[in-house]
Amino acid sequence: MKLLYPTSLALDISRIEGFPTLTLHPYDVKTPIPEDLIDAEILVTWANSAQNLSDAAKRMKNLQWIQSLAAGPNDVLSAGFDASKIKICTGSGLHDRTVAEHTLGMLLNAARRFYEMRDYQNQGKWPAHLGGPQPDRPKGAFTTLRDANVTIWGYGNIAKTLAPNLIALGAKVKGVARKPGVREPGVEVYSEDKLPEILKETDALVMILPGSESTKNALDAERMKMLPKHAWVINVGRGTSIDEKALKEALDNGVIGGAALDVFETEPLPESSPLWKCRNMVLSPHAAGGRPQGSEELIVDNLRRFFAAQELKNLWFGSGVGLL
Amino acid sequence: MKLLYPTSLALDISRIEGFPTLTLHPYDVKTPIPEDLIDAEILVTWANSAQNLSDAAKRMKNLQWIQSLAAGPNDVLSAGFDASKIKICTGSGLHDRTVAEHTLGMLLNAARRFYEMRDYQNQGKWPAHLGGPQPDRPKGAFTTLRDANVTIWGYGNIAKTLAPNLIALGAKVKGVARKPGVREPGVEVYSEDKLPEILKETDALVMILPGSESTKNALDAERMKMLPKHAWVINVGRGTSIDEKALKEALDNGVIGGAALDVFETEPLPESSPLWKCRNMVLSPHAAGGRPQGSEELIVDNLRRFFAAQELKNLWFGSGVGLL
Ligand SMILES: NC(=O)c1ccc[n+]([C@@H]2O[C@H](COP(=O)([O-])OP(=O)(O)OC[C@H]3O[C@@H](n4cnc5c(N)ncnc54)[C@H](OP(=O)(O)O)[C@@H]3O)[C@@H](O)[C@H]2O)c1
Ligand SMILES: NC(=O)c1ccc[n+]([C@@H]2O[C@H](COP(=O)([O-])OP(=O)(O)OC[C@H]3O[C@@H](n4cnc5c(N)ncnc54)[C@H](OP(=O)(O)O)[C@@H]3O)[C@@H](O)[C@H]2O)c1
Repeated sequence: MKLLYPTSLALDISRIEGFPTLTLHPYDVKTPIPEDLIDAEILVTWANSAQNLSDAAKRMKNLQWIQSLAAGPNDVLSAGFDASKIKICTGSGLHDRTVAEHTLGMLLNAARRFYEMRDYQNQGKWPAHLGGPQPDRPKGAFTTLRDANVTIWGYGNIAKTLAPNLIALGAKVKGVARKPGVREPGVEVYSEDKLPEILKETDALVMILPGSESTKNALDAERMKMLPKHAWVINVGRGTSIDEKALKEALDNGVIGGAALDVFETEPLPESSPLWKCRNMVLSPHAAGGRPQGSEELIVDNLRRFFAAQELKNLWFGSGVGLL
Repeated sequence: MKLLYPTSLALDISRIEGFPTLTLHPYDVKTPIPEDLIDAEILVTWANSAQNLSDAAKRMKNLQWIQSLAAGPNDVLSAGFDASKIKICTGSGLHDRTVAEHTLGMLLNAARRFYEMRDYQNQGKWPAHLGGPQPDRPKGAFTTLRDANVTIWGYGNIAKTLAPNLIALGAKVKGVARKPGVREPGVEVYSEDKLPEILKETDALVMILPGSESTKNALDAERMKMLPKHAWVINVGRGTSIDEKALKEALDNGVIGGAALDVFETEPLPESSPLWKCRNMVLSPHAAGGRPQGSEELIVDNLRRFFAAQELKNLWFGSGVGLL
């Protein structure tokens, strides 16, 4: 059996070796798969070009399993692979720490106003109003994580990794997801029908929702109005979960305090977007993740499951069912 | 006995009441102490004007104890009070969480390059090189706290509060101070003669040294050269502990990776300073602390000690010795 691994990232292949019936082959993710590898059964993907994937979807007749290293494998899903015959697995879990760290940085950027300090520095001006003696945790402002109400909407793997860091800094963390309950590290997660009450008390709303039809425009004009005027919105999930037109208006009209966005409806953000210059809009270029950690462990774990005919980890809902 | 408390911050006076022989009186820190309060024995200071303090030093003949709420009470020390007769106490401990949070934000700003993203945003340009797929923890770069070697020089109260946050994000933390040993939360602290070995392996150097003759230019050209070329320097202690001329050259010549500074030799940073426009210099306007937390507890604790004739907490070395 053949496994193709991408050369678009540094994998420690020695840690994947040792399956007697499996051979490992590097491939370039930006060009068509070479003829001698086209019969491979297993394809690991990372940062593949759309062309590489759609070509592979047509030519790889023996393909049984695609292991994406991306948290949201939208590229694979839209490439034309027969998901009824091919198991598609995501890289969920490989981006928890990188995205959590970036999100924490975005929250502190918002609270401590590093972006505004930067604007002053660029003009050679000392931002006196942001330094020196100042009120401690004033009501109606997001100035610190200490005692701040932070709501994480989309409480999955990344949220579980982020929450302890927020709690350590004194934040009071709540989650919102489809299924309510208490989740690691002891955070109460509410269902979406509780949003009106929760948003009202939120100082910072962290959105980590996946991209899907059901999350489209999850944060719309109506829900933005439920937030306090000082609240910040951080989005590291998918751009489609925020109504950007409504966001622009909410920012311009002071409906919310600010927004720090790592993801956008269209990426790169078009030059024509009005978001660039909105008051208190902080742009990050889809930089939160982008560097999977622990890929080798996930691949090996799933290889063992694969050979044992067990269910694979991170299996995309509904993929590979034709094989059962 | 009279205690004067400043109206320059919101103190919960009800939590200081209940000492039968003590009366509490508010005062304005920017004007001379009124005649009817000038006989007070205890003065609490916060953000006092230099004039208010030098006037008080001349006129307050009964003063026995000054409780500053600042971590470094340089203003009180230089106002002309007779430190041989008056006990001077600092607000060390009241700024641990605020400074630690800000420092963490500065470290993430440096690692995740939010300042550079801001520059691109201001130009309406998508900083593509900072987002999308990217190498994970490349050698010779400071891109994340995970596995980063972070050295905290000046390992006191603030450092002890900061270190757990860094460790939770995966950093390997070492300390440098006068006295070596293991300190909370289990961090190995080295004496300064170990700096050559430690700086060599440092990805981010966090300076939290107090301002004094012995810390002046602690980080000089020679020690900057010991750091790897990618290393960042963060300073939230006192500006005098870095040789700013040497820093400018180190930044311009790529001797170090960058510097995020909350404190400067002269504040506000003079318009003529070459630091404003140095490559990878991130300016914060002495904004890390500036909002004491837990002042009431410190005042009450020290009032009890005062009436019990016990040694006061945070007593400035050498002050009040004439009273013994
Ligand atoms: N910015 C970046 O660089 C970057 C990097 C990696 C990932 N991401 C994005 O982050 C997303 C989340 O990653 P993750 O690993 O944390 O995923 P995850 O573990 O699958 O968690 C997703 C969470 O979202 C919730 N959810 C899903 N659909 C929902 C809906 N329609 N309404 C409300 N909640 C819903 C889930 O709720 P239940 O628990 O109720 O199922 C779950 O709590 C990814 O899908 C990806 O789009 C971005
Ligand atoms: N940026 C801001 O807004 C802000 C806010 C608050 C405080 N600060 C600054 O931060 C400083 C530290 O605060 P802290 O509360 O953490 O103080 P701290 O608890 O007194 O700790 C000071 C540390 O510095 C070390 N140290 C002192 N002199 C030294 C020297 N000559 N060489 C090497 N190490 C030396 C001490 O070493 P030993 O343990 O060996 O004695 C101790 O570890 C304050 O003095 C103040 O200047 C800045």
